[in-house]
Amino acid sequence: MSDKERVILAYSGGLDTSCILVWLIEKGYDVICYLANIGQNEDFSTAEAKALRLGAKKILIEDLRDSFLNDYVWPSIRGGLIYEDRYLLGTSLARPCIASGLVRAAIRENAKFISHGATGKGNDQVRFELACYSLHPTVKIIAPWRLPEFFERFVGRQALFEYAAAHDIPLPVTPKNPWSCDANLMHISYESGILENPDQEAPESLYQMTSSPERAPDDPTILEITFDKGNPVSLMNIQTKEVIKEQLPLFVSLNEIAGQHGIGRIDIVENRFLGLKSRGIYETPAGTVLYHAHLDLEALTMDREVRKIKQQLQQKMTDLVYCGFWFSPEFDFIRQCVDTSQKCVNGTVRVSLFKGQVRILGRRSQSSLYNQELVSMDTHGGYDPVDAGGFIRAHAVRLKEYYRVQTETE
Amino acid sequence: MSDKERVILAYSGGLDTSCILVWLIEKGYDVICYLANIGQNEDFSTAEAKALRLGAKKILIEDLRDSFLNDYVWPSIRGGLIYEDRYLLGTSLARPCIASGLVRAAIRENAKFISHGATGKGNDQVRFELACYSLHPTVKIIAPWRLPEFFERFVGRQALFEYAAAHDIPLPVTPKNPWSCDANLMHISYESGILENPDQEAPESLYQMTSSPERAPDDPTILEITFDKGNPVSLMNIQTKEVIKEQLPLFVSLNEIAGQHGIGRIDIVENRFLGLKSRGIYETPAGTVLYHAHLDLEALTMDREVRKIKQQLQQKMTDLVYCGFWFSPEFDFIRQCVDTSQKCVNGTVRVSLFKGQVRILGRRSQSSLYNQELVSMDTHGGYDPVDAGGFIRAHAVRLKEYYRVQTETE
Amino acid sequence: MSDKERVILAYSGGLDTSCILVWLIEKGYDVICYLANIGQNEDFSTAEAKALRLGAKKILIEDLRDSFLNDYVWPSIRGGLIYEDRYLLGTSLARPCIASGLVRAAIRENAKFISHGATGKGNDQVRFELACYSLHPTVKIIAPWRLPEFFERFVGRQALFEYAAAHDIPLPVTPKNPWSCDANLMHISYESGILENPDQEAPESLYQMTSSPERAPDDPTILEITFDKGNPVSLMNIQTKEVIKEQLPLFVSLNEIAGQHGIGRIDIVENRFLGLKSRGIYETPAGTVLYHAHLDLEALTMDREVRKIKQQLQQKMTDLVYCGFWFSPEFDFIRQCVDTSQKCVNGTVRVSLFKGQVRILGRRSQSSLYNQELVSMDTHGGYDPVDAGGFIRAHAVRLKEYYRVQTETE
Amino acid sequence: MSDKERVILAYSGGLDTSCILVWLIEKGYDVICYLANIGQNEDFSTAEAKALRLGAKKILIEDLRDSFLNDYVWPSIRGGLIYEDRYLLGTSLARPCIASGLVRAAIRENAKFISHGATGKGNDQVRFELACYSLHPTVKIIAPWRLPEFFERFVGRQALFEYAAAHDIPLPVTPKNPWSCDANLMHISYESGILENPDQEAPESLYQMTSSPERAPDDPTILEITFDKGNPVSLMNIQTKEVIKEQLPLFVSLNEIAGQHGIGRIDIVENRFLGLKSRGIYETPAGTVLYHAHLDLEALTMDREVRKIKQQLQQKMTDLVYCGFWFSPEFDFIRQCVDTSQKCVNGTVRVSLFKGQVRILGRRSQSSLYNQELVSMDTHGGYDPVDAGGFIRAHAVRLKEYYRVQTETE
Repeated sequence: MSDKERVILAYSGGLDTSCILVWLIEKGYDVICYLANIGQNEDFSTAEAKALRLGAKKILIEDLRDSFLNDYVWPSIRGGLIYEDRYLLGTSLARPCIASGLVRAAIRENAKFISHGATGKGNDQVRFELACYSLHPTVKIIAPWRLPEFFERFVGRQALFEYAAAHDIPLPVTPKNPWSCDANLMHISYESGILENPDQEAPESLYQMTSSPERAPDDPTILEITFDKGNPVSLMNIQTKEVIKEQLPLFVSLNEIAGQHGIGRIDIVENRFLGLKSRGIYETPAGTVLYHAHLDLEALTMDREVRKIKQQLQQKMTDLVYCGFWFSPEFDFIRQCVDTSQKCVNGTVRVSLFKGQVRILGRRSQSSLYNQELVSMDTHGGYDPVDAGGFIRAHAVRLKEYYRVQTETE
Repeated sequence: MSDKERVILAYSGGLDTSCILVWLIEKGYDVICYLANIGQNEDFSTAEAKALRLGAKKILIEDLRDSFLNDYVWPSIRGGLIYEDRYLLGTSLARPCIASGLVRAAIRENAKFISHGATGKGNDQVRFELACYSLHPTVKIIAPWRLPEFFERFVGRQALFEYAAAHDIPLPVTPKNPWSCDANLMHISYESGILENPDQEAPESLYQMTSSPERAPDDPTILEITFDKGNPVSLMNIQTKEVIKEQLPLFVSLNEIAGQHGIGRIDIVENRFLGLKSRGIYETPAGTVLYHAHLDLEALTMDREVRKIKQQLQQKMTDLVYCGFWFSPEFDFIRQCVDTSQKCVNGTVRVSLFKGQVRILGRRSQSSLYNQELVSMDTHGGYDPVDAGGFIRAHAVRLKEYYRVQTETE
Repeated sequence: MSDKERVILAYSGGLDTSCILVWLIEKGYDVICYLANIGQNEDFSTAEAKALRLGAKKILIEDLRDSFLNDYVWPSIRGGLIYEDRYLLGTSLARPCIASGLVRAAIRENAKFISHGATGKGNDQVRFELACYSLHPTVKIIAPWRLPEFFERFVGRQALFEYAAAHDIPLPVTPKNPWSCDANLMHISYESGILENPDQEAPESLYQMTSSPERAPDDPTILEITFDKGNPVSLMNIQTKEVIKEQLPLFVSLNEIAGQHGIGRIDIVENRFLGLKSRGIYETPAGTVLYHAHLDLEALTMDREVRKIKQQLQQKMTDLVYCGFWFSPEFDFIRQCVDTSQKCVNGTVRVSLFKGQVRILGRRSQSSLYNQELVSMDTHGGYDPVDAGGFIRAHAVRLKEYYRVQTETE
Repeated sequence: MSDKERVILAYSGGLDTSCILVWLIEKGYDVICYLANIGQNEDFSTAEAKALRLGAKKILIEDLRDSFLNDYVWPSIRGGLIYEDRYLLGTSLARPCIASGLVRAAIRENAKFISHGATGKGNDQVRFELACYSLHPTVKIIAPWRLPEFFERFVGRQALFEYAAAHDIPLPVTPKNPWSCDANLMHISYESGILENPDQEAPESLYQMTSSPERAPDDPTILEITFDKGNPVSLMNIQTKEVIKEQLPLFVSLNEIAGQHGIGRIDIVENRFLGLKSRGIYETPAGTVLYHAHLDLEALTMDREVRKIKQQLQQKMTDLVYCGFWFSPEFDFIRQCVDTSQKCVNGTVRVSLFKGQVRILGRRSQSSLYNQELVSMDTHGGYDPVDAGGFIRAHAVRLKEYYRVQTETE
């Protein structure tokens, strides 16, 4: 290649990163496009041809789907991660996966720069860049949407269209939806545009991974999902008896079934790392089913007090993922702790998928801490009810003292 | 009355507490039955007649429904309380409400004893008794199911039936379901019997407050729920324009609508305070809708960091409610803290109820912290994207240092 | 005044802010100096004369000592705030106090700008500026040490000396210590220079508020400190019987006595908000005594579980103070919670001060939850030891189950 | 042996357990005494002779000092465990160590029963018994001080003296102190008797491990303590250059030196697990020094965010130790987490011991995360101060929004 400075561009094939590609070339860089396949619906060969035609020195396309599942989605399932009680982190998990690909490319291609098309208000810039800085401390980031030279030039999308027209960058054939979206194996997120009014319902036409619950099948599908150390290892359709054990087919199939039943849609106002509240619509079909099934199995197999401690850790872990600290000392630490808690999370959960809803029907496990004999009302099984009286009265000592003093001092 | 020792019995009208009533009389007590109306489906006058016929000196029937909502359910909604990620605490909230009634009765009737029919393995004995001890530190509790004299005599239900027959206690006309249940305004819980096998699905016939999602209406109902300081204050049916503002009618109506749509069923394995895992089925129609709507409104109106702190508090608050510490110094404290956080939780949430699922469609508030102009991608609105670069790089300083040292020491 | 832009400068009278004053004038601003008296040892009239001679339009000197104690130090005592287990936050508490003065001045003087001399790596810039932005969202900050134009011009102190010489700014008469320090009523902090080697002991000559423990009096001083709702309200010297009740004299006197006894020195490596570790030496005589006395009184008067919850809150509150979030929604919230916990913290603690150490000798309170009769080994006092057996065995149910399952599955 | 039921008695050689020994024999048990050497000052051969003379079938004396240090004290040092901000858990750590010895003895000797002399109000009964139940779920516990037959017979110490006289049990030659105490390698605790008045200062004559600070040497001793993965591995006296690396001699020597300097005394009111507040005096010389040194080294070597997470864990871990849950699923879990955090805690801390106080003088480590160049005021070292401005302004976005809304809605 030439002696120009080399930059790895996180390239999506869309209008924004195509314009950034051309703009970086204009600025004098040799640009190598990097496009990770993390399960988004994308015509990779068209994207490749387009990048090269626009002047990219090279385009690297990597299939990271297995790594995305194994190294990012599964840890999240094990952790039970859910941001602000509702969001399953589909985009947050994808960013460090892509960033690690960008860094590998930068090192291999001897590029000093990494560039991306994330905006200057969002979380993704943080997630990309913190991951890059951790994995490659000397890398330099070019974030055009934070450069006045760029964002003052491209105010509004019309300016982008004009730039595209002037530089022979193909415009999307279909009119752009009045919102933006981001897709991967785990989910699709939608935000901005008409969605910016948080009181305005999202149109049904928006959803791509899930059917409308109203139009979903009138009969539930019953599945059995088996976990080993907290990881999904088997999916059985109770009706068809079909069993899938390989992780990628398992997840893809679960996405399809859960999607047909309209499962995994949420509409939330969330707090971004930069302090803004934003409104997002997400659909996460397989992830939603796995979240519920894993939660149920933990309840069966994990000691109460261990789970309380893990619950504190998982909230912290969730915030770290959301805010882009996947590669950080605290995440390394907390992930080890959480994984330690998962040794016992083995067993099978039976779920029903129907009209947008996951319902738990039953569960079983070799590591179950549930003891039917002990809990049964009709048998005592080594448990002496008399002890409960002492337990209660001992707990009451402190309470009685407190209320005695309260009454006296009032 | 006589000079016998007097006991207030938490009386339900069912077989167990009827037998306990007779047994206490046998043991030489004067028994005053106490029956709280907290919204359970009960024929109170039949229960009254039965108690008196069996020898109760008196029966006190109190309508606590308004107090139950205002003093127990609403604080739980404000707190966003949910035990082990799934259980909305319907029974846990009812117990201190009833206990406060028992204590008022004991003080008024000058009774030294309070008795109840809760079992020796469950949570309810703890909830009843801790509340009684806090509110009335010198009270004595008679818990027959923990007395060997009682529980050794009544091993298995057959012994109860025989005792009932021998003492002219009417047996239930319908055969008992192969599980036990407990109902109030907020929910019905089901456990034991055939439900003790956690892998066995609960039969559809079990549910009393909710339709099967499969048989629920094929069209959603759209509601708008308005909150003031975290309390539900208005319910509007978007289709019929009907508005309800009084708390009891509001809650009853929401129970009915949500119940028709099959909302609020869960099937879980939970951890009891006494350390056993048990399996429970719950249906909480209105509570489920309010939980989701309140959560959504908090996201719109509460600062991110305030909400994180409140989230820690609400987990502790949840455990306190579940374990029976409603009347305790720590609960007093934490409730004041949580209520402080609710000043801003004002506004309206629009929800769809359909086939077992609550979906959030939109939300609005005068106290909203969401700023559409600020978050919009197209406008900067006082926000300089350049600052985000500094934000990210400053956060990266620590990470770079850590990985630098890691690399050097490896 | 003129029609130039007006800036409020946080002025200390020292070399750095004198140079900044002149530089701001050079840049075309009208500069109003603001100097808060928060108990630092300073010749305010000399500082005033100097500022005016150097060209300040005005200098505002405010005595904030009472506000500093009442609104910042006392809340910290009530909260039991201690950063990373050791640092009592003396500087962190002063910054929002000064910032509120700067903002009041800016509003009164109709100045759009606030400027300060804090460095670009430290915590103080954050504390000043976040407080200013919260209290006056439209204010603009000029932080010269973050402006390349400034910091590239003044690399190393020699450049400052030359600038001072050239602009008739008086140089300090005594050679500067090879470290920097910051003083207020509560503490003096020392850092940088020779202290940057964390293995190098701080020289004895550094300390200004405290005697060396080695040279402290050979006899202890015994004090009784009385708190009301967590606030220190009375200080009695047991030997002299002198009593002080006014907050400023109380604190000043306690500083003096504790300082004589060498109390309150720490030498730590701490984590700054910006992610750097730095080494600091602090001396906090009165604050150290009050921290220990308050902690002791809380143990006597506060319920165990309330204190556990408060302990979580105080750690968060500490981080917020350290990181500059004094004026923030989360700090408002957490302070209300913490203050709620202090209603019962009333009573008197007797302490001995000797050779660098505070020792607790005894304590008493009307709100004490300690019940001597109950705890006495020789009396049962309404406590039945038999209950403890039930308490223990009930707690053991879960443990036995766990180890039973562990053994079976191994 | 005979066919009587066999009991392992936790025997101390003192009056109480001697009486219990004789009483158990009276009750028809074969008694095997178990006496663990955990560093208490005890004449083991006299105790042995006495037990056998009183009728014990056997006495087992085990030297557990190394296990106590390695398996209990070191984990506590690594964890930084400190109960209610002050108590270093000396007794709490010893109980599970002894209990594991009792269980080993019970299994080896085929005894179904374990007995101990702990009172019915204290923590030790819980610690002993929970540990026994976890390690040996079928064991039966005999706790005479909780048996009405026993405690009603021995009300007050006079009854014990009479029983001793009647059964040829030797009375202590010295008059008993008006308090009780418990000693091991780590500490001595004192409570009850005259100490039950929390406002009454403990007499100087009480202390056995530490000199009075007033009479301690007038010159400090300077030590360097080296840690490896959080464990103390070397102790060097800077003045004498003596180095000790074996754990038992290291700890014993540190106890001696710190004891001479009067280090490690505390006087506190604490919250027992059973809900009572009690007053205790503790002296923990070596433990106090190690606590402070370890804390200081963590600050140098551990990432800020990792430490925050560890801090949450250590508070929970502390409560578990205090309340007797050493052998529990949650303690197993949390200990693994905490140990994971200690990989980097390597290095040396220099401390001064003087007149009751430990002072940190300096510290160094190969795993230090402190970067002198980065933090130095005079160099920028890869850190751009301009970034701090963006960092601050980005943090301020949320605050400005909040206060803007506050102002508007007021």
